[in-house]
Amino acid sequence: MRDVAIVGIGQTPVGEHWDRSLRDLAVEAVLAAMDDAHVRRADALYVGNMLSGTLSFQEHLGALVAEYAGLEGIEAVKVEAACGSAAAALRQAVLAVESGRVEVAIAVGVEKLTELASKCTTNALAMAADADYETVMGLSFVAINALLMRRYMHEYGVSKEDFAAFTVNAHANAQHNPFAMFRAPVTRQQYAAAKMIADPINLLDSSPVSDGAAAVVVVPAERAREFSEKPVRVAACEVGTDTVALDNRANPLWLKGVERSARRAYRRAGVGPEEIGVFELHDAFSIMAALSLEASGLAEPGTAVRLANEGAITPRGRFPIATMGGLKGRGHPVGATGLYQVVECVLHLRGEAPEAVQVENVQYAMAQNIGGSGATVITTILERLTP
Amino acid sequence: MRDVAIVGIGQTPVGEHWDRSLRDLAVEAVLAAMDDAHVRRADALYVGNMLSGTLSFQEHLGALVAEYAGLEGIEAVKVEAACGSAAAALRQAVLAVESGRVEVAIAVGVEKLTELASKCTTNALAMAADADYETVMGLSFVAINALLMRRYMHEYGVSKEDFAAFTVNAHANAQHNPFAMFRAPVTRQQYAAAKMIADPINLLDSSPVSDGAAAVVVVPAERAREFSEKPVRVAACEVGTDTVALDNRANPLWLKGVERSARRAYRRAGVGPEEIGVFELHDAFSIMAALSLEASGLAEPGTAVRLANEGAITPRGRFPIATMGGLKGRGHPVGATGLYQVVECVLHLRGEAPEAVQVENVQYAMAQNIGGSGATVITTILERLTP
Repeated sequence: MRDVAIVGIGQTPVGEHWDRSLRDLAVEAVLAAMDDAHVRRADALYVGNMLSGTLSFQEHLGALVAEYAGLEGIEAVKVEAACGSAAAALRQAVLAVESGRVEVAIAVGVEKLTELASKCTTNALAMAADADYETVMGLSFVAINALLMRRYMHEYGVSKEDFAAFTVNAHANAQHNPFAMFRAPVTRQQYAAAKMIADPINLLDSSPVSDGAAAVVVVPAERAREFSEKPVRVAACEVGTDTVALDNRANPLWLKGVERSARRAYRRAGVGPEEIGVFELHDAFSIMAALSLEASGLAEPGTAVRLANEGAITPRGRFPIATMGGLKGRGHPVGATGLYQVVECVLHLRGEAPEAVQVENVQYAMAQNIGGSGATVITTILERLTP
Repeated sequence: MRDVAIVGIGQTPVGEHWDRSLRDLAVEAVLAAMDDAHVRRADALYVGNMLSGTLSFQEHLGALVAEYAGLEGIEAVKVEAACGSAAAALRQAVLAVESGRVEVAIAVGVEKLTELASKCTTNALAMAADADYETVMGLSFVAINALLMRRYMHEYGVSKEDFAAFTVNAHANAQHNPFAMFRAPVTRQQYAAAKMIADPINLLDSSPVSDGAAAVVVVPAERAREFSEKPVRVAACEVGTDTVALDNRANPLWLKGVERSARRAYRRAGVGPEEIGVFELHDAFSIMAALSLEASGLAEPGTAVRLANEGAITPRGRFPIATMGGLKGRGHPVGATGLYQVVECVLHLRGEAPEAVQVENVQYAMAQNIGGSGATVITTILERLTP
């Protein structure tokens, strides 16, 4: 197999795009990534998306996005892994180029969650969980995460207020990201006063319902400089899974899917957690940020919240996370999120992140996209290629 | 890249499985394929499916099927390309093994269409078409195909009755397939008297609403004999696309997606149409069988129906199609169909097809799975490996 690189990135602003359709958003991101890589054609297109069928009454996004992006005729397919769909699409693009069958692949993630009433969206998002054993009990996806957070507080003696550090960091960073949905800081006081959604998860623990699309262009690393002056090597893009239903897990506070995916990625890239300069993790809820840090080997079990309160997660800390807002501040268009994370990592490695959040001298950046409450995890490690 | 082979196959009977869930069907096919290949583990699982979200309120099938098949922890993802989802999943499995990243990959296609009322299913299937330009006009998927059939009859002077040959052949062959949904022959008289669905498409032009799952195990060809005494080489598995909406095509009677996919497959495999011993094509409606034969290079434009009436498509003819019933007789669980076709081709190449339909001395068998009315097409050419 051969090495692959990312040579083009594109993203739409995250927000409520009432005036734009699913295909419009996807096409905008694809064309932006193609422009960035100076390509006019591609051999294959992988579209990450979770809910186009349920919310936009449209399946078959592969061919549709290819057609509307001016790529009619090329290989195209949709890839779905709940909220992990975008990075799952990247994984397929990477495999395709690694195989030698495909020279130029595009991965795009797109989601349009504001198409129907919010109750429809809540029901639709619950399809990331186990329909026959979780959703059937009346559990929404936020309720499942609330059970996890409650359990974490109980087991580790952490208070609800301690989780504020994740939200404060995410919003502080989102301010500087022109593509972020929420560009205003949040204080600990605002966090403490936020409306409860599913106790103990409040509004400011939760990522917002969003629309958006993000895309990358993947090529063989040996040809990367034909397309970009600052190519980024895909050092690893590895998938790990776990049971979909929480109650099938021996220890619900240990995300085995994260552990499997991260370990495979570290091994493949030949680096350890300490060499990761930026970590764009899947903070769909504050509790997921904490559990991800722990299962990825960046914090001992039960210590991630303390780490966050010590400032380790800020752009100047030891383990910067959510540097452009994360899912909480940038927004979480579910099937697009994994590629927003990757695009943000590429910006850091290129030295093109917004000045206030640019992490200095990043050699490796890591993006981790999660489907369900840890059932599908894709960890991508990107490496700066020095000229 | 390296050569890959299919070393295990599994399928459930096609039918109305009111007593079994989506995951049950998928797991049965996966375990059957693993048994056939004598494997207990795999590295990656690709689940082809179109409508689990809309009809079973379950997304995230990759991790779910992996868990329930006893494969927890492995890489897993769902792949969707409307009715072409299963072969699209096979394509990803092939790329993964070709890349060298994956040794043992499983592709499974699964669909459960009988979960809700039939009106829901009809609406759901229309999501293979363009929601904003076709479905919004009130066109169902059968209506779109009816427009194609009417146009074909008009352009080529073919009568409605002439299409009977496809249905008669499909049902005659399905009789011998223990996994087929309809195991009774159909006469031309029955065809002529069948209830009209969307003029000129009648009940006996249409594949049935079905449940089912089919799976294959894919490994590097150099290791194939560790797993199977009769491995089958994947000589090609190639994707072509076209516009989703029919009105965006210059000539709606020429399936460019089929042409692109088939040409790529012939080139990759190094064979021509005349060397194909069995062709499992996508006869979701009789008209699609005719158009597929033509765009795949087996018949001149406008001549496929005549070819069918001359007996060329029977198991003893020049171009045997639908040898185990096709979509019409075996049934069409949409996101599973492409792998039923591949399983049937493998049976021919192994010499294990039901005696009455076994085609003699097949060296190459071709399966062609179509998403939408020709927008995504995956053509797979399989080759018998002599010991």
